[in-house]
Amino acid sequence: MIVIGERINSSRTPILQALRNRDSTFLQGEAQKQADAGAQLIDVNAAATLEDEPDSLAWLVEIVQQVVDKPLCLDSPNPEALTRALRVHRGKAMINSITGEKDRFSAILPLVLEYGASVIALCMDDQGLPETPAQRIRIATSLLEKLTEAGVPKEDIYFDPLVKPVSAVYTAGLDVLETVRILKTELGAQTVCGLSNISYGLPNRHTVNRAFTLMVMAAGMDAVLIDPLDPGLMSLIRAGRVILGQDPYASDYIRAFREGQLV
Amino acid sequence: MIVIGERINSSRTPILQALRNRDSTFLQGEAQKQADAGAQLIDVNAAATLEDEPDSLAWLVEIVQQVVDKPLCLDSPNPEALTRALRVHRGKAMINSITGEKDRFSAILPLVLEYGASVIALCMDDQGLPETPAQRIRIATSLLEKLTEAGVPKEDIYFDPLVKPVSAVYTAGLDVLETVRILKTELGAQTVCGLSNISYGLPNRHTVNRAFTLMVMAAGMDAVLIDPLDPGLMSLIRAGRVILGQDPYASDYIRAFREGQLV
Repeated sequence: MIVIGERINSSRTPILQALRNRDSTFLQGEAQKQADAGAQLIDVNAAATLEDEPDSLAWLVEIVQQVVDKPLCLDSPNPEALTRALRVHRGKAMINSITGEKDRFSAILPLVLEYGASVIALCMDDQGLPETPAQRIRIATSLLEKLTEAGVPKEDIYFDPLVKPVSAVYTAGLDVLETVRILKTELGAQTVCGLSNISYGLPNRHTVNRAFTLMVMAAGMDAVLIDPLDPGLMSLIRAGRVILGQDPYASDYIRAFREGQLV
Repeated sequence: MIVIGERINSSRTPILQALRNRDSTFLQGEAQKQADAGAQLIDVNAAATLEDEPDSLAWLVEIVQQVVDKPLCLDSPNPEALTRALRVHRGKAMINSITGEKDRFSAILPLVLEYGASVIALCMDDQGLPETPAQRIRIATSLLEKLTEAGVPKEDIYFDPLVKPVSAVYTAGLDVLETVRILKTELGAQTVCGLSNISYGLPNRHTVNRAFTLMVMAAGMDAVLIDPLDPGLMSLIRAGRVILGQDPYASDYIRAFREGQLV
């Protein structure tokens, strides 16, 4: 399972301030720490800079890739910001995200194709957020068909089942696990999610997030957006990879142990 | 998912010594602590007392049930020890365990029936330990048929897929996850396992054990034999129950949080 570092998000106040101040040292540090902790991609989000988003995101991509040799996950629904970011991004970017909403789909698809990016596809459309796994699968099936017909390779598409708080929706966890299993087994599709939503409204959220991460991993999740600076979570993910045969000879797990990264 | 406390096992030196010395205070403390931490059943094993096992196990059942109002998991392959323990056990005991081995099956089955006990059925037979999920399913199918035909209710049977170390068998984790899923979906059977074997030979074993516990939980495991005095593990299990809808309104999770049990 791939880890996408979620920390450089303008919804977090220190990130927004650093973006406004063009504080490259702070933001490069955030990127470097996430890569050192094991993130394979770094999510970058500048949406809260509003009309400055295109400039901010393009600048962010450049300064992050100065210090971290990783692909970035370009987190924006804004086609102009994405275009500016994709122009300066080195390597294969990931676009976060496309949906089944008509306008967003037609605005984002050309960028995916032009830049050969991989793409996160949210299981939602103009009818809004789906309630059941069956509705998610219906949207994903339609999106998969439209994206591959347009020429996006299947292996470049990651479906996000959309995680709701289990404190509000009793079946939120079960729904995600079932959706991931069906996406894997019936559609042969790849999956991704940002999972911290699951614990909204509960105490000790990190415990719920950790438990849920391992559970979606067991269900076949291919990638997660998480905070890789949570050593408890990263230790469990590394152990989970060993259990799933994703870390041959447990070499990454044992290296992390030797470097004192496991808790 | 049900937690069976595994600590009162005579393979552990302090337990063996306490059994030999009939140190009821120590053993009752071990039982009480596990129940307080959330164990729903307490496993009791006196096998290492050898020829004294029948006396030791019967005594152990009595002194443990003096302080803990829980069913016990009677952990012995010895029919005489089980008989003595079952005679004094109050409530519905669990027998750990029966197998597909002809001699063991015919010795244990009458005890399951006579005492109306639930039973752990190991997925092994006279051909030894199975290699693949398919072999485990074949053994479980045969055991399920023989047990239910003899009159054991299906809901009293828990299949243990048998966990091998992932350091020795690359697919050990995946094999268990697949076996549990098939046992649940195709046989409608209940499952249990002692899972610490998964981490044998790896550093930071508790991390691997915790990750694996959540993974088997996501796959549908009904019960696990673990050390409930590991607060990190119990916190994750409690969170996992919330995620799976096994803890309505998260009331147990929130109670544990208020009591300072969550880490």
